[in-house]
Amino acid sequence: MVTFNASGLMPPVFTPLNDDLSINYDIIPTYAKYFADRGIKSVLVGGTTGENMCFSVADRKKIADVWVENGRKYGLHIMVQVGGAPMSDVLELAKYCSKVGVNSLLTLPELYFKPQSVSELVAYVKNVANAAPNLPVLYYHIPSMSKVEINMPSFVTEATRNIPNFKGIKFTSNDLSECAQVLRALKKDQELFLGADTLLAPAAVMGVRSSIGTTYNIFPALAQDILNAIAKKDIEQARVLQEKLSLAVEAHTVEGAWVPIMKAGMEIVTGIKMGPPALPQKPLSEEAKKRIADKLRTLKLIK
Amino acid sequence: MVTFNASGLMPPVFTPLNDDLSINYDIIPTYAKYFADRGIKSVLVGGTTGENMCFSVADRKKIADVWVENGRKYGLHIMVQVGGAPMSDVLELAKYCSKVGVNSLLTLPELYFKPQSVSELVAYVKNVANAAPNLPVLYYHIPSMSKVEINMPSFVTEATRNIPNFKGIKFTSNDLSECAQVLRALKKDQELFLGADTLLAPAAVMGVRSSIGTTYNIFPALAQDILNAIAKKDIEQARVLQEKLSLAVEAHTVEGAWVPIMKAGMEIVTGIKMGPPALPQKPLSEEAKKRIADKLRTLKLIK
Amino acid sequence: MVTFNASGLMPPVFTPLNDDLSINYDIIPTYAKYFADRGIKSVLVGGTTGENMCFSVADRKKIADVWVENGRKYGLHIMVQVGGAPMSDVLELAKYCSKVGVNSLLTLPELYFKPQSVSELVAYVKNVANAAPNLPVLYYHIPSMSKVEINMPSFVTEATRNIPNFKGIKFTSNDLSECAQVLRALKKDQELFLGADTLLAPAAVMGVRSSIGTTYNIFPALAQDILNAIAKKDIEQARVLQEKLSLAVEAHTVEGAWVPIMKAGMEIVTGIKMGPPALPQKPLSEEAKKRIADKLRTLKLIK
Amino acid sequence: MVTFNASGLMPPVFTPLNDDLSINYDIIPTYAKYFADRGIKSVLVGGTTGENMCFSVADRKKIADVWVENGRKYGLHIMVQVGGAPMSDVLELAKYCSKVGVNSLLTLPELYFKPQSVSELVAYVKNVANAAPNLPVLYYHIPSMSKVEINMPSFVTEATRNIPNFKGIKFTSNDLSECAQVLRALKKDQELFLGADTLLAPAAVMGVRSSIGTTYNIFPALAQDILNAIAKKDIEQARVLQEKLSLAVEAHTVEGAWVPIMKAGMEIVTGIKMGPPALPQKPLSEEAKKRIADKLRTLKLIK
Repeated sequence: MVTFNASGLMPPVFTPLNDDLSINYDIIPTYAKYFADRGIKSVLVGGTTGENMCFSVADRKKIADVWVENGRKYGLHIMVQVGGAPMSDVLELAKYCSKVGVNSLLTLPELYFKPQSVSELVAYVKNVANAAPNLPVLYYHIPSMSKVEINMPSFVTEATRNIPNFKGIKFTSNDLSECAQVLRALKKDQELFLGADTLLAPAAVMGVRSSIGTTYNIFPALAQDILNAIAKKDIEQARVLQEKLSLAVEAHTVEGAWVPIMKAGMEIVTGIKMGPPALPQKPLSEEAKKRIADKLRTLKLIK
Repeated sequence: MVTFNASGLMPPVFTPLNDDLSINYDIIPTYAKYFADRGIKSVLVGGTTGENMCFSVADRKKIADVWVENGRKYGLHIMVQVGGAPMSDVLELAKYCSKVGVNSLLTLPELYFKPQSVSELVAYVKNVANAAPNLPVLYYHIPSMSKVEINMPSFVTEATRNIPNFKGIKFTSNDLSECAQVLRALKKDQELFLGADTLLAPAAVMGVRSSIGTTYNIFPALAQDILNAIAKKDIEQARVLQEKLSLAVEAHTVEGAWVPIMKAGMEIVTGIKMGPPALPQKPLSEEAKKRIADKLRTLKLIK
Repeated sequence: MVTFNASGLMPPVFTPLNDDLSINYDIIPTYAKYFADRGIKSVLVGGTTGENMCFSVADRKKIADVWVENGRKYGLHIMVQVGGAPMSDVLELAKYCSKVGVNSLLTLPELYFKPQSVSELVAYVKNVANAAPNLPVLYYHIPSMSKVEINMPSFVTEATRNIPNFKGIKFTSNDLSECAQVLRALKKDQELFLGADTLLAPAAVMGVRSSIGTTYNIFPALAQDILNAIAKKDIEQARVLQEKLSLAVEAHTVEGAWVPIMKAGMEIVTGIKMGPPALPQKPLSEEAKKRIADKLRTLKLIK
Repeated sequence: MVTFNASGLMPPVFTPLNDDLSINYDIIPTYAKYFADRGIKSVLVGGTTGENMCFSVADRKKIADVWVENGRKYGLHIMVQVGGAPMSDVLELAKYCSKVGVNSLLTLPELYFKPQSVSELVAYVKNVANAAPNLPVLYYHIPSMSKVEINMPSFVTEATRNIPNFKGIKFTSNDLSECAQVLRALKKDQELFLGADTLLAPAAVMGVRSSIGTTYNIFPALAQDILNAIAKKDIEQARVLQEKLSLAVEAHTVEGAWVPIMKAGMEIVTGIKMGPPALPQKPLSEEAKKRIADKLRTLKLIK
């Protein structure tokens, strides 16, 4: 029987690029050590932040390999997102991951022939889950990007009924009411990872204990402090810290699209070189980076 | 200078109807006393729950009159929603309310020639606010019904700059991230009323202290207990009570459209006769009412 | 039995306003004569072009009265749009129209508690039709404004089955594929009026013979020439004339919202004073009017 | 300088599958001969009908190879759709096609990091066009599937200005008003292919002379007859034939999703074995196939 045990804050890793847009694998060990040094126990490879929807299967396999290797070294649970590609590639990636030491899978829905019903979405995820029957498989709900808008509480119930290794969901939506419904629909060994950095504190009040958010790359301690404040029932502190993180997010989002701004922020704050975004996205201007840095300084998030 | 001081839980009142669909004004004193007996300090008249978008101007005036009268008797702040009608009627209602003792106004946006920008929406609300310059005026954001989807943080900033008696917003959306941004954009004497009964606890963590929700008609004590639990920093209790209220909401929503199900629930729980919904909506079947009652019994919300 | 016999080009009339935004009834006889002189046989009163969703019931009644009077004088079929207001007002207007000599009714759907299914929309239109059982009643499909997106072929079939005096549809959408399906679903004594000025020629090829379009106020001869060209099987001529009309529409639409630009265009081309749009819409600047006039001159539509 | 000269009816080919879902390359020569025998001069490989968004790069290359080979043999212009995959794969496919004898390219937009503006979409198509600078490149506008909703007249103008080998658009939308605007924005050596089988006749009236539609696989003569009727100015005949084709389309669409129903129809009508759809789509039931056949028989499209 497949079990799943990752939880808490799971940063979705960036894919570092060189200036010529080739993948900079060499920096991944530094990146993995950075997480381990900050108490991070698991990462998501190949999500939106990782831009894997832009890479070939060969590159995605190598990215997974390097993270598995470094995950072993630094004690990180490696979840790999295998969707966002032609179905045949998704299945090949799922099979590959099931053999090379990946710990769990996440999958987007079909992006072109989009599922129109709960049962069509369950069928898609079942295809992926069957290709990696030894791994926990989670569904990546992100309607703002995928434009797949299926009722998640119903989906989770049906997927649990039909897919033995279905173990949860990354819920990337600001609708905490639906989020709470999903939480109630999940079984004990399943997990909901919230994908909304600006809602960590309020979601925690509803019982959400896990989250995948880009800014946990950049401000892992701040995010953990929010969860700790809720655990200590210090609501006022949680509110203040959440506002700080939310304002840090806003400092980025006014400047452009999610991945380019966050890759820029990661470099500004941590110094680890992430490089430009993959095609077709465009890098941020130096002026925009400076504006972000100025705001983070005002927030006392950098010096 | 116009000041505004309502806050906390504000039930949006139903408009009780007789079986022939005429308005049952006679029951309003009982209804107002019901609120006063339960510590309610303010009500919204003419919102979605009140179905005023279905009534003539004459009926809406009389509804306002009766509530003003009972509001005086029972110490209730009376906010009246004047929008959701032809602009000339909206302005007439706003003028009328400014003269008959209404305490504050709320307005929907134009429903047909929908505003396409922040400035068009500000212009609309300014028209309404100018018609009642002595009253606090708030904007009713409910994109699921109005299909007006304007960025609220920007709107609030511009409205505050341009409308002296603009005093806040009813924010009916599950997006607590945007809600927090609105909260940060508001000045001290302005108020945000959340319009999401299932998100009372998590929103309170973000600093939301006021809310207009249909179920505060039916379960005012339960809603207040959620806010009290947050105030006492008892997060676990807040979570449990919020889940109870959310499950009560779900017991209704599976049966049909919002107003008919909630009018039914109000009768089931309080015994105060609300009658059928106004045209064009349809009343619930007796079977559906029975299913709601059964679920509320299981939740120990009725005996 | 109710019969309906209007067809062909039916201009939707503007509501002329004075500069103080009061309704300029005095100009309506001139306006009606303008139509009669150009061979127009029927007009729509109170549609989008007429901005009746902004007026009180009293004003809407008087507008209907004045048009009925002038319709008699000039031999015009008077169709009145009664929707886009609170349901009780819609029913009152329908009843009124049924008694004062209006020839047919058109109705928008409910704008707030929007119908979610074919049967809910049929129920709404049935309410209106029952209030004026002696008049032909048509449905106004304009999803871009009403945000009511119900499958029209199914609706037409169900409405025909359930409403004896249901006599057709104003189909305001550019989807000519759905338009053709509606056409096939209609019975002999029902009519489809296309609401897309830029698609008169291609729709005529599919069998659409009737149309309600704002520009038939301004360029009635050009629109009629398009239909005549199709009738004479002169496709090349139809194409050239349609392109001329479409470019005239574009000359307006780049300058702002539909009613303000078209009211301006009507004055520029015909000299009949239409005045500003009703609140909440704003009049065009003089510069914009000049740009429109320049383009119409280039198109040789004015001198 | 790159020139483009395909026009008229261009069937988008299915990708025939064996029952085990492997690609049935062996039937392609028969399929190509079928087209040549019916006067078809060009085909689109790898569009929605071809389901290439589901296949690996290796399979897509082989599919292109086999069609190029058969295209040579039967005198067919081979256009290949290279998009709907990770950007790196799209670029690899474009480069490959530019070397193996493909005649022109079509590309979908990015499906995940969707372009938000005209300039972002131009940048994407420019990336593809630069990878195959010797080939005409066209853009595949199909917002119902891609959920990329950019103003096409503006896009076409900007793409023409910035991309030397940009040669047109496949316009898959029922909005013939926007279609006409695109037509006016195109230069002489560029082409618009309508992607709406049910609008062939009305579009022809507006000057649309080319079309890519799935049913031109199944009923190529009927489609050509529609164009011929318009060319002979026999509008009544064009209308009758268009209605016949549209009813044939409807006979299919009531049964399920586009590709599975059309693959079934192709087998029913032509006997050429297309097999099941690729994953994640599901084949039609035998009952559904029978219902389609019955309707086509009624329409006298099969015996």
